[in-house]
Amino acid sequence: MIIGFDADDTLWHNEDGFQASHREFETLLSDYGDPTAIEEHLFEIESRNMPKYGYGVKAYTLSLIECAIDISNGHVSTAQIASILDLGHALLDRPVKLIDGVTHVLDELGDHTKMIITKGDLYHQLSRIESSGLRTFFWQTEVVAHKDPATYQRILDLHGVDPSNFVMVGNSLPSDVLPVMEIGGKAVHVPYHVTWAHEHHEGDHDAPTIEHLGELPALLADWGLR
Amino acid sequence: MIIGFDADDTLWHNEDGFQASHREFETLLSDYGDPTAIEEHLFEIESRNMPKYGYGVKAYTLSLIECAIDISNGHVSTAQIASILDLGHALLDRPVKLIDGVTHVLDELGDHTKMIITKGDLYHQLSRIESSGLRTFFWQTEVVAHKDPATYQRILDLHGVDPSNFVMVGNSLPSDVLPVMEIGGKAVHVPYHVTWAHEHHEGDHDAPTIEHLGELPALLADWGLR
Repeated sequence: MIIGFDADDTLWHNEDGFQASHREFETLLSDYGDPTAIEEHLFEIESRNMPKYGYGVKAYTLSLIECAIDISNGHVSTAQIASILDLGHALLDRPVKLIDGVTHVLDELGDHTKMIITKGDLYHQLSRIESSGLRTFFWQTEVVAHKDPATYQRILDLHGVDPSNFVMVGNSLPSDVLPVMEIGGKAVHVPYHVTWAHEHHEGDHDAPTIEHLGELPALLADWGLR
Repeated sequence: MIIGFDADDTLWHNEDGFQASHREFETLLSDYGDPTAIEEHLFEIESRNMPKYGYGVKAYTLSLIECAIDISNGHVSTAQIASILDLGHALLDRPVKLIDGVTHVLDELGDHTKMIITKGDLYHQLSRIESSGLRTFFWQTEVVAHKDPATYQRILDLHGVDPSNFVMVGNSLPSDVLPVMEIGGKAVHVPYHVTWAHEHHEGDHDAPTIEHLGELPALLADWGLR
């Protein structure tokens, strides 16, 4: 049995940093709109840029700058744009903060082969995996552009793993749970306390939800996977 | 025998687009410095950001904005920054223009197993591979963060390929030629008419240099690889 782990908001905190950055951005631009208006405008710009920019801090920073120019009708100052560049740098420099208990759980799951399968910016994700100290727990790490069924299938084929021998663990229903179940794998949903607006999902699914990663070893044992 | 191909400036034109963008950037900022001064300042900023940003258009665009604010002492206008964002969008939207004769050469090499191994932004590179129409020629495509010996070794191990059965073809000595020779593979250097400042390299190497990809099949035949 191979266990795949999402990284952002599953192994380490991520979205909370973006949320803090959003708040700073809204404060910076408070002359040009209230927080809700700014957030809605940013959501639109990010959605439009996503097929071209993909995910990650660089894409986010470019969308923030575009949003600031747009929502201020070009009145935002160069100093404010410099501050937005700094928000991006700060997000990239942010030390990796592991979710409570991650190391303990990975230790407990020592008999299972584990992979990281994460979406995002290649450079930033690899540097976070490196600085997280978690690399040695994992057999493979894959940074992918999209978490769709075809991508999971390609990764499993590459490593000669049948989907029936694969469990994916992550915080996002559309990225970590549904596509894996679609190709015949198992999935475990571990919600994070905030969800990125672009990952919101309504709908049914059969995957078990656990409140904390610490419940994973018992769940896998229940499934007879130990 | 597996043949690895670099993509940017080996299969399709890339650096010429960045060069054209540099010229537009220098024109845009001509009030704040001559082209040489601007280019040198940009080189410094890109070098400083590279460990954090990596390669690709988004990294480039963020460095352009930082350079513009910096070199103008904050006097660059918001409209000029909007124009820089547009330069980045234009680079991402630029249609893939294949190097002359690429399709013909790949056809001629039909008996060899071929891979793309390219550095850069994951999303942009995958979308260019897709829109290039070349995907069906290749067994695998790998977008990597660094082209160092360890990365080549990892990719070859992943696919169960011995370096002695691998030839890498590309325009960059430090990225495509030297690291592959270091792990015991073969390499063929196909210079592009311009070289990105960050890929300049002085030094000796034993790899053959060909003027055009069209010479590759004959070279491989000379090596007895057909």
